Amino acid sequence: MQIATPYLMFLGDVPDRLAAKTAYGIADWRPEWCIGQIRMEGCAADLGIPDLTLNEAVEKGCRTMVVGVVNAGGRLPEQWVAEIVEALEAGLDVASGLHVRLGSIPEIADAAQKHGRQLHDVRHSDERFDTGKGTKRSGLRLLTVGTDCSVGKKYAALALEKGMRERGFDADFRATGQTGVFISGRGVAIDAVVADFISGAVEWISPDSDPAHWDLIEGQGSLFHPSFAGVSLGLLHGAQPDAFVICHEPTRTTMRGVKHPLPSIAEVIAQTIASGRLTNPGIRPVGIAVNTQALEEAAARKLLDDLAREHDLPATDPVRFGVEGIVDRIAAEFPKA
Amino acid sequence: MQIATPYLMFLGDVPDRLAAKTAYGIADWRPEWCIGQIRMEGCAADLGIPDLTLNEAVEKGCRTMVVGVVNAGGRLPEQWVAEIVEALEAGLDVASGLHVRLGSIPEIADAAQKHGRQLHDVRHSDERFDTGKGTKRSGLRLLTVGTDCSVGKKYAALALEKGMRERGFDADFRATGQTGVFISGRGVAIDAVVADFISGAVEWISPDSDPAHWDLIEGQGSLFHPSFAGVSLGLLHGAQPDAFVICHEPTRTTMRGVKHPLPSIAEVIAQTIASGRLTNPGIRPVGIAVNTQALEEAAARKLLDDLAREHDLPATDPVRFGVEGIVDRIAAEFPKA
Repeated sequence: MQIATPYLMFLGDVPDRLAAKTAYGIADWRPEWCIGQIRMEGCAADLGIPDLTLNEAVEKGCRTMVVGVVNAGGRLPEQWVAEIVEALEAGLDVASGLHVRLGSIPEIADAAQKHGRQLHDVRHSDERFDTGKGTKRSGLRLLTVGTDCSVGKKYAALALEKGMRERGFDADFRATGQTGVFISGRGVAIDAVVADFISGAVEWISPDSDPAHWDLIEGQGSLFHPSFAGVSLGLLHGAQPDAFVICHEPTRTTMRGVKHPLPSIAEVIAQTIASGRLTNPGIRPVGIAVNTQALEEAAARKLLDDLAREHDLPATDPVRFGVEGIVDRIAAEFPKA
Repeated sequence: MQIATPYLMFLGDVPDRLAAKTAYGIADWRPEWCIGQIRMEGCAADLGIPDLTLNEAVEKGCRTMVVGVVNAGGRLPEQWVAEIVEALEAGLDVASGLHVRLGSIPEIADAAQKHGRQLHDVRHSDERFDTGKGTKRSGLRLLTVGTDCSVGKKYAALALEKGMRERGFDADFRATGQTGVFISGRGVAIDAVVADFISGAVEWISPDSDPAHWDLIEGQGSLFHPSFAGVSLGLLHGAQPDAFVICHEPTRTTMRGVKHPLPSIAEVIAQTIASGRLTNPGIRPVGIAVNTQALEEAAARKLLDDLAREHDLPATDPVRFGVEGIVDRIAAEFPKA
């Protein structure tokens, strides 16, 4: 999936910020792609970028209108359909993170065909993949793994892309989830791929590259989550990472959506190495990324110091304290040729 | 899904027996349904049943042509399309275990509609699943796991169904692959489920049951196979087995389709327990099932004796020597109330 940039951000008439979470994520990480927003009567979200009409957006060079919002009830509101059709008529592609496929709505499908525009359903994948081969590919890879779902794996990978580029590394974020696909303009929502092709899809996302190039691959789920561990394992095998960063949320008591307790960071490290060795015998941890939002700064720093000592790894909150320490460790463990 | 029997077995021009393992499995477990086979130039598989033309098959009462072959990636070879169209024209339904949907190929879809024939895609399920919850369900479960793909996991589960029923157990085979669905007439091809729902689909396949009832769940892939380990892990977590049987093929040197060596049986036992504990802390091995087809009887018996001693588990070739020892172990480990 390759989405043309830059974007016009469609926010619809969502009742709160949370419903536009994907749009905020894109605006945070790719402000240069987010030329403007389009909001309907009653919209409670605001990305703080110019409100544009469709024609203004086209004039400013927008290529794709991004529907970065969720709607309750599963059915696309009538007023959104009309707006999407108008965007296609105005000359924009449309990319959506909704569950419903844009092409399943006849008015939208007809307008796209009539005007020769692309429809992208980021939650769905029509790409044909091969099964994973597990063969070593050239280039270097880092995967963010987690003690649970939703503990900052995407955020850590994006922060590392930024931090490593600033330090002269040739590094690219590789998306495996829907928000990540919008942020990188390409990628696959791995949890929507047919099970037999999980690792094959990741091999496609992160192909052979220059020997000094880093792919920073967005992790999904957790090897210890009873709902999603299969996805996490296929992703680990396909990613064949040289390095991994463990992501953690210290206030979580049970894993997301189930009653199981979180694994320890030590268990995650041990299992990631044990399983990851299959496709990369050199796999090793290079850092711990903790979401410390719920902690005062002193408590956060103490927690990170304790974790760093306990695991002999740099530990940081990428948002609060940056990723310098992890980039230092990467530079030390993988010296450039 | 209700597939009309009996079957004409389509073997195409597959390069080896393993590529036709679906057809062999159906012929072994449902010989009364397999009236004849149809093979193309260069076909290396042979079920040992009459070669029939399409018209002969219809005359002998065949109702469905079964495409009982697999190929890596699941793409339908061009040269098979014409043969499938002719079968539909001759008056047969067509049932396929391939990833590609028969109806997605216009010539096949058109011929089926024109001649009023049914197309069955056994790998696909239109059932909607929830994500796995990992909650303990009532009833007892056994999962067959493997050192590789295609090492007899389905055979072992079917042989155990037969052997346990003969000993008075209330036991049902639960299919998770296309061949199993052809054989049992129900189940889900788990490798075709969307990745997020692997464990949830297995929870659907094997729901709560009577406390003394055994579900004998067909395993898939291997926790050590770089292409399919994600499927195997999701299946293990969803199955939450009380007991597992390790399946092995002693002449295999690399894992199927890749260059990786096979794990040892000890590694498979250790990893299955380590991962399986997440949804069933009581998980334990109850036997080893070896495909000894390539060995003389004396060599086979010695191998099994050695394995039994080494792992303190009953070891057998279910096809050659039956499953008595494993049923004995199950009876001892899980005494009926």
